[in-house]
Amino acid sequence: MGEFELLARIRERLPEPGPRVRLGSGDDAAIVIAEGATVTSVDALVDGVHFRRAWSSLEQIGHKALAAALSDLAAMGAEAGEAYIVLGVPTDLEEDDSLELLDGISKLAAETGTSLVGGDVTRAPVLTLSITVVGHAESADDLVTRSGACPGDALVVTGELGGAAAGLLSLEANEERPELIARLLEPKPRLAEGRMLAKAGATAMIDLSDGLGGDANHLARASGVGLRIDATALPLADGVADLTVAVSGGEDYELLATIPPDRITAIPATRIGEVIAGEGVEIRLPGGGLLVPTGFDQLR
Amino acid sequence: MGEFELLARIRERLPEPGPRVRLGSGDDAAIVIAEGATVTSVDALVDGVHFRRAWSSLEQIGHKALAAALSDLAAMGAEAGEAYIVLGVPTDLEEDDSLELLDGISKLAAETGTSLVGGDVTRAPVLTLSITVVGHAESADDLVTRSGACPGDALVVTGELGGAAAGLLSLEANEERPELIARLLEPKPRLAEGRMLAKAGATAMIDLSDGLGGDANHLARASGVGLRIDATALPLADGVADLTVAVSGGEDYELLATIPPDRITAIPATRIGEVIAGEGVEIRLPGGGLLVPTGFDQLR
Repeated sequence: MGEFELLARIRERLPEPGPRVRLGSGDDAAIVIAEGATVTSVDALVDGVHFRRAWSSLEQIGHKALAAALSDLAAMGAEAGEAYIVLGVPTDLEEDDSLELLDGISKLAAETGTSLVGGDVTRAPVLTLSITVVGHAESADDLVTRSGACPGDALVVTGELGGAAAGLLSLEANEERPELIARLLEPKPRLAEGRMLAKAGATAMIDLSDGLGGDANHLARASGVGLRIDATALPLADGVADLTVAVSGGEDYELLATIPPDRITAIPATRIGEVIAGEGVEIRLPGGGLLVPTGFDQLR
Repeated sequence: MGEFELLARIRERLPEPGPRVRLGSGDDAAIVIAEGATVTSVDALVDGVHFRRAWSSLEQIGHKALAAALSDLAAMGAEAGEAYIVLGVPTDLEEDDSLELLDGISKLAAETGTSLVGGDVTRAPVLTLSITVVGHAESADDLVTRSGACPGDALVVTGELGGAAAGLLSLEANEERPELIARLLEPKPRLAEGRMLAKAGATAMIDLSDGLGGDANHLARASGVGLRIDATALPLADGVADLTVAVSGGEDYELLATIPPDRITAIPATRIGEVIAGEGVEIRLPGGGLLVPTGFDQLR
């Protein structure tokens, strides 16, 4: 089957695009009517680097690729808009496999109101996905970068931590832990939470793809501040007993945000610490010691 | 060297982004203020599929990847805006190699007024580039799709044909034909020509990536018309003697457009035929015979 035939079959299965889309897949480029600010992020996943086909169904791989990309839009407080998919297909991937992978993408696209409006299909030595997502906001002022945290702000996190890392450990140990494994293989982009946090007045935000320890450092550096985290306040996923896993493990795709304490009332997040003058990230243990995140290898 | 260090070194070398860009590379996503219509296309290049490292410098590979992506914007009549680069780096590619590749992208970006505002770097089994380009127009009505050709329109093409294919043949035969080889390895996206054709009233447009024969068919099918091409009118690149090469060879990245004959005066293109009712593409030879494009393998 050639590239054009696969593209035609893919196009048949695409859901209807949203109202901003003037021209979808099939021409030289897609046309979108955008007002206000657009937010764009690209994310690549490579077999053997970011996932293993032995551990994931193709539908899960498609889901996770789009989820990871949309998570970056969530971290800006943007509304999901359009996605463009580049699929690198190895010779051992059948046409139906490509379509199964696309089903995983399409379902999450439908759930999140994302229009799939373009892409490219090419041969590649291993399964490779590259996803570009575009989000929207009324104005750039409605969006939240990594760099606006101020000393005195509270530090908050959505959802629960450590589930994806514990899921990876379960897979490696061949344990039956379906909830944790789902946290790893089928993450949910926190789009609604991101918009609520932005609306509530979050001053900085980042999604937890590399792990709380690493991503908190990215935010602290971008904002030129320090972060003090109370280890006992961390919301651990069910089945995660080890604090080190929760702060070191990546791919939870929760949102870490800073927000003035008086704006913290009605947000879907747990307060875990505060922004301080200085630099770096301290994770304080109950006894007064510090927890140091480890380089927890997330298959990357 | 890790992903973050390479990203930091790449960011240092990026040219200043254009005025639409509110936030460039380094956060969860880029922020762009877009008014009117945005035009988005993605394009992937894989070593061994779309290029050979033995034949191209890394700078040329970077140049060509961005040129091929921008060519899709040219074919819509859009102004170049932003580009997002996904780089899949094999273990035998050194940091300096990645930066050389980026230099090829950056130079063409500067020449075309394209802002490089985001990307992702990942390990990959072979060098893989995936480029998303976003173009702009005041309104969707200023853009030209593949589907607006009407019987009676003239068919025109920019520049010259067959140069890239002849360049590939020269490389395969180990011949010194630097001009032709440059046509293959350093194509120029016809952005200015695309905007002029759109402004002049082009009714349909496509860029010649697969070859005149194949791409004319895409345009004819999308518009629901037939195309009649006069083989003697084709503008051949210097050094291209074989008409079959000119109509079958891809990667010239010239623009094929349809336009009402009375609008044809001041456009940067050669008239090569006409739009007729019906379907399919006829390429007529002087004696009255028809030329049939062959499947000319362009390393894909």
